Amino acid sequence: MKGIYFDGKRALYREDLPRPVPGEGESLVRILTAAVCNTDKEILRGYRPDFQGVMGHEFAGVVEASPEASLVGKQVVGELNAVCGTCIYCRTGRPTHCSSRRVLGMHGKDGCFGEYMTIDTSLLHVIPQGLPAERAVYTEPLAAAFEIMTQVSLEGKNVAVLGDGRLAYCVVQAMRAAGKRVTVIGKHPEKLELFKPFSDTTLEREKEGYEIVVEATGSPSGIRQALELVRKKGTIVLKSTYAGEVSLPFSQIAVNEITIVGSRCGPFAPALEALASGRAQFPEITLFSLKEYEEAFAFEGFKAGFSLEQPDSGFPGG
Amino acid sequence: MKGIYFDGKRALYREDLPRPVPGEGESLVRILTAAVCNTDKEILRGYRPDFQGVMGHEFAGVVEASPEASLVGKQVVGELNAVCGTCIYCRTGRPTHCSSRRVLGMHGKDGCFGEYMTIDTSLLHVIPQGLPAERAVYTEPLAAAFEIMTQVSLEGKNVAVLGDGRLAYCVVQAMRAAGKRVTVIGKHPEKLELFKPFSDTTLEREKEGYEIVVEATGSPSGIRQALELVRKKGTIVLKSTYAGEVSLPFSQIAVNEITIVGSRCGPFAPALEALASGRAQFPEITLFSLKEYEEAFAFEGFKAGFSLEQPDSGFPGG
Repeated sequence: MKGIYFDGKRALYREDLPRPVPGEGESLVRILTAAVCNTDKEILRGYRPDFQGVMGHEFAGVVEASPEASLVGKQVVGELNAVCGTCIYCRTGRPTHCSSRRVLGMHGKDGCFGEYMTIDTSLLHVIPQGLPAERAVYTEPLAAAFEIMTQVSLEGKNVAVLGDGRLAYCVVQAMRAAGKRVTVIGKHPEKLELFKPFSDTTLEREKEGYEIVVEATGSPSGIRQALELVRKKGTIVLKSTYAGEVSLPFSQIAVNEITIVGSRCGPFAPALEALASGRAQFPEITLFSLKEYEEAFAFEGFKAGFSLEQPDSGFPGG
Repeated sequence: MKGIYFDGKRALYREDLPRPVPGEGESLVRILTAAVCNTDKEILRGYRPDFQGVMGHEFAGVVEASPEASLVGKQVVGELNAVCGTCIYCRTGRPTHCSSRRVLGMHGKDGCFGEYMTIDTSLLHVIPQGLPAERAVYTEPLAAAFEIMTQVSLEGKNVAVLGDGRLAYCVVQAMRAAGKRVTVIGKHPEKLELFKPFSDTTLEREKEGYEIVVEATGSPSGIRQALELVRKKGTIVLKSTYAGEVSLPFSQIAVNEITIVGSRCGPFAPALEALASGRAQFPEITLFSLKEYEEAFAFEGFKAGFSLEQPDSGFPGG
């Protein structure tokens, strides 16, 4: 089959990849749309030197074979962490932190930048009727933003989102879907335009600070700015990930009784529901063919993806 | 009156200090016992360059004059933050973070290393019958440890306290009084002896890590060790304060969804109750006269303090 293969150093377009065969409990999914995440670009920069395989973890596809018969033919999205079910984290309700987890397109498991993919059936979620695949691919990053609401109560609190990129956008959409209007603090007036229909936006700081600051800049400098913006006894939600260390006046966190909450993968169900109902809205993804992968990885717009649909298939004689 | 005065650079013993006159809403307290906190030593090292005045914030005393008549003659302890009552933090239940607060013996307000002190009457707490002044002076640091229980639920979680000094000891006593047995992780076998009647102690790490790690080492290196010990989706409570910055792999906090909770001053009522009932136990404080302040500040044992009791006063002809 066709796919984008990472050989440990760089990405390659290949047409000779074997079609994957589902293992026990797995389903076979034919990919319709896959999307490029920043993490994929980080992998190209050396973030996962031990990984070799098909890249990608954001997808929408059709179930071709499954131990769960009712899923066959359904359009699905899927979670990225395949878990062991027996470690301390799996036993205590924290499967996304499984000690021996395999991660789609990143760690021990082929991903979705290919015609077919296998995945643990328990990780699949059926796409509601009417939600097209190229919008459903936003489920995974939006779910990660919904994680915040499982960790922190926003009720009655003023919330700032630091950053004006895709990460911040997901956070704004998840909070808006949950009924919360936030203030977006960014550096780029042109990027902030995209947020204006859904949030307050500002290049400046509100004087008294915020009870909750979501650090979604994607940059090591964000946490220091968050510390300046957050109120005493307030909360910083940390969404950015990056390589390297950050230096901070740590005592300030104790003296001002700041809480910092690290936040990563989140629940798919509310994200899918928000996309299907239109309560979360995203710009259209820009689609490339797998062959155009270099262009897709270099894309500077809101979001790049791969279209793998074969519009003629299924039509007799097509 | 006699007292230890900080002139902005060093501490001086003086006998010519004016006896303080209570302002509106304040009570006059005659000090019985005052205790030396690490913060006092930090002030001598330049932690509060803007402060000039009588040092000290841990005390037990007798109310000599008060707008609240029922308090006169009562033995009391007192909170250290005098607040404005009108700022954003006072209005929202966070008075210890008052924007214009004055802090006993530290910032804008004379402290308790003197024969008399004035203090906002609302900050006073009556010492229960039978609890001697030299044990009641532990209320303030123990209250700061009780703050953790107002921030984090310990129920059903394994808890490690990092550190084997006085800060860690207060945390262990507060948690023990709240019915929680913890593991103390220290560097000094001889210091850990003091913890053995009240907690598990270890020089090593438990393999699977801890759901809650209380960082009470007083050292900048403690937070990095806490990050190694805490489980994914676990909580680090930050108690140590120190000057300067700390460098950390911050992304790890996001990826592992760690929560870091800064923790400072806490509620006096449960601390006083735990001391009075014996559910919190402390080594005897080592008492000095005010004149011996240099010796008291240099004391290497568990806790130094000043005795200001005048055993003869009150006895006719004594």
